Amino acid sequence: MKKLINSAESLVSDVLRGMAIAHPGLRVDHATRVIARAGGPVPGKVGLVSGGGSGHEPLHGGFVGRGMLDAAVPGEVFTSPTPDRILAALRSADSGSGVLQIVKNYSGDRLNFAMAAELAADEGHEVRTVVVDDDVAGADGGAGRRGTGATVFVERICGALAEEGADLAAVAEAGERVNAASRSIAIALSPCTAPAVGRPGFELGPDEIEFGVGIHGEPGLRREPLRPARELVARAMEPLLAGLPPGGGESLVMVNGLGATPLQELYVVLHETAGVLREGGLNIAHSLVGNYVTALDMAGVSITVCRADAPMLALWAAPVNTPVLRWGC
Amino acid sequence: MKKLINSAESLVSDVLRGMAIAHPGLRVDHATRVIARAGGPVPGKVGLVSGGGSGHEPLHGGFVGRGMLDAAVPGEVFTSPTPDRILAALRSADSGSGVLQIVKNYSGDRLNFAMAAELAADEGHEVRTVVVDDDVAGADGGAGRRGTGATVFVERICGALAEEGADLAAVAEAGERVNAASRSIAIALSPCTAPAVGRPGFELGPDEIEFGVGIHGEPGLRREPLRPARELVARAMEPLLAGLPPGGGESLVMVNGLGATPLQELYVVLHETAGVLREGGLNIAHSLVGNYVTALDMAGVSITVCRADAPMLALWAAPVNTPVLRWGC
Repeated sequence: MKKLINSAESLVSDVLRGMAIAHPGLRVDHATRVIARAGGPVPGKVGLVSGGGSGHEPLHGGFVGRGMLDAAVPGEVFTSPTPDRILAALRSADSGSGVLQIVKNYSGDRLNFAMAAELAADEGHEVRTVVVDDDVAGADGGAGRRGTGATVFVERICGALAEEGADLAAVAEAGERVNAASRSIAIALSPCTAPAVGRPGFELGPDEIEFGVGIHGEPGLRREPLRPARELVARAMEPLLAGLPPGGGESLVMVNGLGATPLQELYVVLHETAGVLREGGLNIAHSLVGNYVTALDMAGVSITVCRADAPMLALWAAPVNTPVLRWGC
Repeated sequence: MKKLINSAESLVSDVLRGMAIAHPGLRVDHATRVIARAGGPVPGKVGLVSGGGSGHEPLHGGFVGRGMLDAAVPGEVFTSPTPDRILAALRSADSGSGVLQIVKNYSGDRLNFAMAAELAADEGHEVRTVVVDDDVAGADGGAGRRGTGATVFVERICGALAEEGADLAAVAEAGERVNAASRSIAIALSPCTAPAVGRPGFELGPDEIEFGVGIHGEPGLRREPLRPARELVARAMEPLLAGLPPGGGESLVMVNGLGATPLQELYVVLHETAGVLREGGLNIAHSLVGNYVTALDMAGVSITVCRADAPMLALWAAPVNTPVLRWGC
């Protein structure tokens, strides 16, 4: 295992120290591991919190800031943060207008965020939860579709709506609608290696891909040969589009590198994705191309499409100022 | 070789088509391969052009926009763009106030950009050149230090100065000063594979790194064992700091992934880099952490430090609006 780390034990702490140096707009609490907006909760604004296992950077800390999250809470690599730390994030994000927590659909995350929400409610915080479950390729142990790239869309659109002063019920409802309108699929060209494990989570032949892989290296729909990008994208878009509400119109698209994928390959995939969407009557209103929801050092790509309505598009374009997404500010 | 591409032959064209979809602020000319600001050259402003072989994305196309480049021109993978295409970029960037071309110090790039500048001069364009040569680890065939991460600092600071209305001589002089104040070093954990070659450019043992690698996989200072990040950074910063003008003060720092490096590892490296700089009396005024100057699918990191004076820091913080760097706009 080759990694630029000091040790598996110190990794998350070291990452947080680096983030604090890189991003003066964030306030990192090294005791609770909560990454919050430097200015504290915004009076009158619904707070937004997300989190989950580390190893998916920049998710979620890179999305803390105006127009997205108020706080993010990372766990150990591929491990849910504990309820006490989630509770600390909920506290830090609540200005008195309540908090929405955005949770990817994995049993560990669901359990811990639910416990944290109960603890927060006991302290008088109003907490709502949106569960993101956009991955058409797989279920997390019977818990339904896994949560992946659509998390970025939910965080962004809920974040913009909260910034406009919408109340907790409205922000939560928008999150549900974005999630329902979004689907993802991922393809791995190589496995990833968790630092504490020290060896790849699975093996692939020299010409083989994992079609429908999960962001922790979970098995996908099938193993198959690597094909030219055009064919690969066409095959990937079949289950993705089948999972979306039918019809044409506007879309938000994310072509996401899983960690070890050159940016030039992601542009190739976006071009092919745009072609498939066009045939399906979908226009790309806005796109993201880069590493947003990674799986450590996995090579591969995920594609997320949101069939966006006019309010979603307007919220997407509203000002945002985070380490990763930044426009209009 | 596993890559998300259609073919080595169509790669650069496919990438440009993806970039055109992703970034409406860019105008991509698919015949000349010039990536320019959508609004055309800015009247009264010195134009800025850069370019070089593909495979280093987001360099240079990702840095086209307000406060950085007016045009970028990519060649084939790891191959300089031809003079006719560079000439097209120079033409597209000249509003009548002259053009600065920013060239990484490789013999192919220097030759082709020099020829393009002559052709442009014949057409009446005033062209100046800044050669970036910041890599302390190696020379390009006797041509002196290679050009790498400092290119981003030169493009940014010259771009901000040009935006303020400085004349060509002043913008070129600023570029020379930024380059002289900047040094880089890179470490490879794995080789990279050029698509047209189909096999890795070199081999590394399971615990071995290439210390001082070039951004095309050129040999570095030495092979050595992988060490914990703290030790590795300390060793890398020795030649880097020795190459910088002496003294403490403020710095700009870029911790750059070479293409296949997880973001979490880059944050670890930034944290360690900050510690070494602090001991040397250097404060990090601003930092970049991510993939900026890549080498296809190489795993590893480069560190660039610029000992920045007050004007450089002010220009760094001025508005910028490109696909990759965006603030204050």
